[in-house]
Amino acid sequence: MTASEAVVVLREALGAQVVALPDEFGERRVADWSGMPGATPLAIIRPRTTQEVAQALAICTGHKQPVVTQGGLTGLVGGANLLGGEVALSLERMNRIVEIDEVSATMTVEAGTPLQVVQEAASAAGFYFPLDLGARGSCTIGGNLATNAGGNRVIKYGMMRDQVLGVEAVLASGEIVGGLNKMIKNNSGYDLRHLLIGSEGTLAVITRVVLRLRPKPTATATAWCGLPDFAAVTTLLARAQANLAPGVSAFEVMWAGYHDTVIANLKNLRAPLADAHPFYVLLESVGTDPARHGEAFEEFLGGMLEAGIVSDAAIASNEAHARDFWAIRDAPGEYDRFIPNCAAYDVSFSIAQVGDAAAQCEARLRARWPDAIVMTYGHLGDGNIHIVVDVPGRGKQDHDDLDAVIYDVTREFEGSISAEHGIGTKKRDYLHLARREADIASMRAIKAALDPNGLLNPGKVF
Amino acid sequence: MTASEAVVVLREALGAQVVALPDEFGERRVADWSGMPGATPLAIIRPRTTQEVAQALAICTGHKQPVVTQGGLTGLVGGANLLGGEVALSLERMNRIVEIDEVSATMTVEAGTPLQVVQEAASAAGFYFPLDLGARGSCTIGGNLATNAGGNRVIKYGMMRDQVLGVEAVLASGEIVGGLNKMIKNNSGYDLRHLLIGSEGTLAVITRVVLRLRPKPTATATAWCGLPDFAAVTTLLARAQANLAPGVSAFEVMWAGYHDTVIANLKNLRAPLADAHPFYVLLESVGTDPARHGEAFEEFLGGMLEAGIVSDAAIASNEAHARDFWAIRDAPGEYDRFIPNCAAYDVSFSIAQVGDAAAQCEARLRARWPDAIVMTYGHLGDGNIHIVVDVPGRGKQDHDDLDAVIYDVTREFEGSISAEHGIGTKKRDYLHLARREADIASMRAIKAALDPNGLLNPGKVF
Repeated sequence: MTASEAVVVLREALGAQVVALPDEFGERRVADWSGMPGATPLAIIRPRTTQEVAQALAICTGHKQPVVTQGGLTGLVGGANLLGGEVALSLERMNRIVEIDEVSATMTVEAGTPLQVVQEAASAAGFYFPLDLGARGSCTIGGNLATNAGGNRVIKYGMMRDQVLGVEAVLASGEIVGGLNKMIKNNSGYDLRHLLIGSEGTLAVITRVVLRLRPKPTATATAWCGLPDFAAVTTLLARAQANLAPGVSAFEVMWAGYHDTVIANLKNLRAPLADAHPFYVLLESVGTDPARHGEAFEEFLGGMLEAGIVSDAAIASNEAHARDFWAIRDAPGEYDRFIPNCAAYDVSFSIAQVGDAAAQCEARLRARWPDAIVMTYGHLGDGNIHIVVDVPGRGKQDHDDLDAVIYDVTREFEGSISAEHGIGTKKRDYLHLARREADIASMRAIKAALDPNGLLNPGKVF
Repeated sequence: MTASEAVVVLREALGAQVVALPDEFGERRVADWSGMPGATPLAIIRPRTTQEVAQALAICTGHKQPVVTQGGLTGLVGGANLLGGEVALSLERMNRIVEIDEVSATMTVEAGTPLQVVQEAASAAGFYFPLDLGARGSCTIGGNLATNAGGNRVIKYGMMRDQVLGVEAVLASGEIVGGLNKMIKNNSGYDLRHLLIGSEGTLAVITRVVLRLRPKPTATATAWCGLPDFAAVTTLLARAQANLAPGVSAFEVMWAGYHDTVIANLKNLRAPLADAHPFYVLLESVGTDPARHGEAFEEFLGGMLEAGIVSDAAIASNEAHARDFWAIRDAPGEYDRFIPNCAAYDVSFSIAQVGDAAAQCEARLRARWPDAIVMTYGHLGDGNIHIVVDVPGRGKQDHDDLDAVIYDVTREFEGSISAEHGIGTKKRDYLHLARREADIASMRAIKAALDPNGLLNPGKVF
């Protein structure tokens, strides 16, 4: 039976409204933001319910038809792109908020719901949903789960995996697993939820989830700090975590090379401090009592200045001022304006080793490409840094030798080749640098156990 | 080849120092605290390194010899007991703290290290390790991981799974998986760590782990509150979480039946409030600034009293006073003194449904056994309650009909039959009430993928 026969059966069973053929979906975007190639699907399935997902997958299994699940298509590693010969399963119609339980502080949503819709609904109900990333308007909760998304608030609230109580999903066979668990504690058997989270659509299709809501912070204090060296940066982190009781909600470090390059190239940005410093930190703390919180934040920073840990600092006087600080940190969204062909890395190390590892990366890159632009910045509280490299004259995906330099350092420092973006196809060939052979063999065995025909997102991760 | 031949080979390979025979370990305790039967092991293997664990398991696989891994033997569901014909693998000699990394705020330990040793070492290094439970002196980090232990501080710090960055483990084959990852963010392939945590020794033997350390709280405020109804209890929880910025570190609710019974039966306890109330809450908040924190705590409670959410409250004036409050909550450790044959349940529900579910349990128990003692209490912030039932005249394990009542209610309210104790053998026959058939089939498939001969802790969980 050929693949196109599977499409015929899918269309008969689910209808033309749910199963669209290539001449019907036309110019629609079918690849993610990675810039990696993405084949056109044989069909796009857009189910409206978990039952329709189950029906579609059972048919695909019956016809050995590979399936790629797609959310907002904002991934950065090709994880949702097609290699050729697959049908796409888009969760875009499963985008409803099913329930907000204010007493249990939970929100039940369909997996295709965009992150920003969840954030806004939480806020309207008097709560806070802390996961946040640049793609918030397009990315979906299902995609956030498939990739275990991170972002800026991990230091206080954790990653996507920490925001989720229940996961309902459909196996390749069409069987439904998990459910809408609202319990914070549930030790009844293996935690399939955590296995599915971060598995990049290779084990099951997540259909509905129960999210955990947090109390809404009502006071925020933000400062921009200049620091003399990396030891001062880690000291500031430790002291802030120990002393800013309500909670450090962001600790974004920027090496001078990042700061100076974005300030020089993006005319809308202004340096917050008069003098140059080797390191800059955007420090944010949240609380519930604006007066007490602001006072404690100022006291804390005063102590850090006196101790010489911070060389200079500016405290945001209002929200607009804080947004100016964040604009410097969010400059990567505008790289296309001055380094459109850059290579961007998302690596992590133990916090103690971030400084040395970053220095090694930069030294080796400069030794080989003296005119390279190297910009390093990231979420130090999570050990996660991004390194952006632009070697003049390089094409958009022409980065293999740069990859080798960065991932060699990652391996030597026992870091991770992917802190928050996942593996997809982009980092697949480097997975062995981050995981033992027995780990990869175990992943393959688990994949074969849950998806014996290898139909879900084939060719991704390993 | 017979099982005893496996023991001969193990002893030859690892030596009599590591592999002890029954006549050598004599009266040693080999069963957990559940009171469930536990067979005598064919031998006890006490490896000193990960490599010795790997060597032992490879030999066991070669001889199809089943293995039960044992930690502190403080479990409550028979998970570490032997069914007969197994060797025991005790991690008791792998009890060293390998490293404390103060900059990364991590502690690397061998899996046999007792919880209390970790807590004390963290404190000595200026940090805090938040997991805490009554068995702290005997239970081990490996056992805490195998069961995903909970305890009193989950509301602020999460369960054992949230305290761990890296897990090194040995598969039945003798292959080592995972490692000493210190990264908070690491999205490189499936998260085997979370799969192993809570799998009760059925998938691998955890040998070394990297724990996450937290800043040490330097201010604690504790109050004992009387409340008029369950709606007031959930309101107090929500308000405390929203307003006690530094963090609610415990929210322990006790139904009047619990309070009155333990006060009446344990002479060392005194009721903190003059009047009787339908519900009592032990509320604890931690912070870093004693003056600011105490002031905010008093203000908050004053507001709750004024609003009628709390009927009466006592704030602990010092540590000893707070310990008196905790002694009432910790009374279950002394049940043996007045209800030695009680049945104890560890169930969870959505926070919104805890009140109704508990009321249903009590009503159905009383309808059938009018003279039963029913005591309900627990960690409301986690939706986790313990229900203790004493039916006069019952024997120690004579609880099947009581189980049926409680687990029926658990199923009807879509709760969990095990919030924090695990499944072991004690709750194995009820697993189908808490998990879908496809979930259990998936667990079995994963078990077969990682332990194809079924040698690790056979007969547990499912």
